[in-house]
Amino acid sequence: MALSRRVRESIENASWIRRMFEAGAALRAQHGPQSVCDFSLGNPDVEPPAEFQEALAQIVATPMVRKHGYMPNAGYPEVRACVAEQVSREQGVRLTGDSVVMSCGASGAMNSVLKTLLDPGDEVIVSLPCFMEYVSYVDNHGGKLITVPSRADFDLDVEAIAARLTPRTAAIIINSPNNPTGRIYPEETLRKLAATLREARPRIGRTVYIIADEPYRKLTYDGASVPGIMALYPHSIVATSYSKDLSLPGERIGYAAICPEAEEAKLLLDGVVLCTRILGYVNAPALMQRVVARLQGLSVDTEIYRRKRDLFCGALAAMGYQFTVPRGAFYIFPRAPGGDDLAFVKALQEELTLVVPGRGFGLPGWFRIAYCVDTPVIERSFPAFRKVMAKLGR
Amino acid sequence: MALSRRVRESIENASWIRRMFEAGAALRAQHGPQSVCDFSLGNPDVEPPAEFQEALAQIVATPMVRKHGYMPNAGYPEVRACVAEQVSREQGVRLTGDSVVMSCGASGAMNSVLKTLLDPGDEVIVSLPCFMEYVSYVDNHGGKLITVPSRADFDLDVEAIAARLTPRTAAIIINSPNNPTGRIYPEETLRKLAATLREARPRIGRTVYIIADEPYRKLTYDGASVPGIMALYPHSIVATSYSKDLSLPGERIGYAAICPEAEEAKLLLDGVVLCTRILGYVNAPALMQRVVARLQGLSVDTEIYRRKRDLFCGALAAMGYQFTVPRGAFYIFPRAPGGDDLAFVKALQEELTLVVPGRGFGLPGWFRIAYCVDTPVIERSFPAFRKVMAKLGR
Repeated sequence: MALSRRVRESIENASWIRRMFEAGAALRAQHGPQSVCDFSLGNPDVEPPAEFQEALAQIVATPMVRKHGYMPNAGYPEVRACVAEQVSREQGVRLTGDSVVMSCGASGAMNSVLKTLLDPGDEVIVSLPCFMEYVSYVDNHGGKLITVPSRADFDLDVEAIAARLTPRTAAIIINSPNNPTGRIYPEETLRKLAATLREARPRIGRTVYIIADEPYRKLTYDGASVPGIMALYPHSIVATSYSKDLSLPGERIGYAAICPEAEEAKLLLDGVVLCTRILGYVNAPALMQRVVARLQGLSVDTEIYRRKRDLFCGALAAMGYQFTVPRGAFYIFPRAPGGDDLAFVKALQEELTLVVPGRGFGLPGWFRIAYCVDTPVIERSFPAFRKVMAKLGR
Repeated sequence: MALSRRVRESIENASWIRRMFEAGAALRAQHGPQSVCDFSLGNPDVEPPAEFQEALAQIVATPMVRKHGYMPNAGYPEVRACVAEQVSREQGVRLTGDSVVMSCGASGAMNSVLKTLLDPGDEVIVSLPCFMEYVSYVDNHGGKLITVPSRADFDLDVEAIAARLTPRTAAIIINSPNNPTGRIYPEETLRKLAATLREARPRIGRTVYIIADEPYRKLTYDGASVPGIMALYPHSIVATSYSKDLSLPGERIGYAAICPEAEEAKLLLDGVVLCTRILGYVNAPALMQRVVARLQGLSVDTEIYRRKRDLFCGALAAMGYQFTVPRGAFYIFPRAPGGDDLAFVKALQEELTLVVPGRGFGLPGWFRIAYCVDTPVIERSFPAFRKVMAKLGR
């Protein structure tokens, strides 16, 4: 037995997103790449904004000493200061660079934060449906993920969360705009969550941190915006990336920002810096740190995503699919016609069209469409969605 | 108590390299940056080879679809194929891209490999003195680092390693050229180690993997070369980076390569890919993958390091310091005059000169010089080394 038991099991139970990705590769090999409509992966198709290419080319052309060398594990001080300015604007709380740790994407930030917070057996609450990598991220550090179903409208169910708070609860992860639902949690809900955590404190004997995973913050439509959690609850940490708003997921660049008013904020920061080092990230990639510093507040043209969303939602609604039009991210999360998400996904796959079953996010009976693909692919998929609805949607 | 107990303790027991780094920052602030001679950090001062800048500029200028997007977690297939060609040359074993996983530096590769191999309580053996981050890397995944003193000449003590093999031994880490000693393990020693592991197999009931951490492979002097472990022992994994040979430590780019003849090689590969994802690295940075693919076999001009080494070693020998002239990496590891490494480092620090005490590598009584700094800094430090030798070296 070469492999760790846990890793061996994880390989056998490959994630649904991964399985669909592999199914797509097989179908493309068999039928040709043009014949497959793949909505399984959240890999942005919109190019980074023009300013990105300009900044990158300029920084690459500028001679600097030890340009690709080590810097402090937290990142370049001047980069952290730029990020802090923007986070202050978004969160409604004044941060300096001392509250920011540059990271290898949101997943790097999330793992460093979780390792900092978790003792073995500590619990982390998340609302379902959710991005299932959270299970691994919490498990990596000896914690246990506690899943709580969301409300029917995919808003947080604060009462249900309250009922799961215990002396082992270390943190709650909120992901807004949400993957897979596209839901933006309203300020009212977040206020209620904050009040609930404050009230629970004496009873459970500890401060529960909110970890906000918000890579889709800038991808919102119809005038929607994402409330800043730090202004509502001081014990908050933002763990996020530039993967989606600047279309840079392959470059692994993001950050963790700790609300300066959080309990033990300074020690938390030291912990996240230490964990960035000892988890083997060491530091966020040097070149991309310098690039994103110049692009604070920018994002790809969200109108492109809005048009794709409207096109897809319009067609699906006309076919009889049931869903709420998402106001953020680039996912649609409809009910699976017939109620069995696996049967639906399989039927759609026979039509060379790939989506991820809801159980891949902890909610069977639904499915996720990632519409961050070329518009012609979206259009080409409509007959398949229509056909499978006719077949299963009775 | 916001922080995990373990992380809290780790912060309190900050690594010696880190402490010296912070002492350096404080001294620079107090006395001016020019007055401090800092040999504490292995941050290469030699610029990347000219080909690096050319490849980077060219790739940045070339339009590509989803150039900064996700790719398979293992890396771009064409990049993996290029790396496999070079690893085949170095290791004397034929690898294809299917045996390579691109990683966030050697530390990312090492963590993914260790998580793949280790069940809770499994042991990993390493020879002392060593890079102390190994303790964290093994601990991250529930393992236990077993340290075995090296021989007096800093070669591996294979008999001592044999005595520590148990049914819990999952792996041995070898780091050659070594940090901190600069020692290159001879082929004869590695053959003996391989034979020992083969013989132990029936007794301990498991295959022990060798993990070769070799970021200094190309930084060798006086005609020395580093034997390929894969040709000597099939159950071998190379976990390494371009940080030192291309002077890119800030960019976090490296790889894990698994010997195709290793036991369960295919499953190991799947495990390392999975762990790359779930540990939150997700993939090695996209742009740097494409850059290093074009630079296989290249390295910085090692003559620059050789000259620094010779300058430093010549001066230290003349002052009476005791050490073996290292034939690899960019470290010198002398005995601390007087025998107390802490007293020595402190005395040197009073002269605004920073080195790391041997206990930071698990071997008190010695100290490490990282000579990857500007030559004038090396020259400026000689009076301090002379003065402290006069003071403590009796």
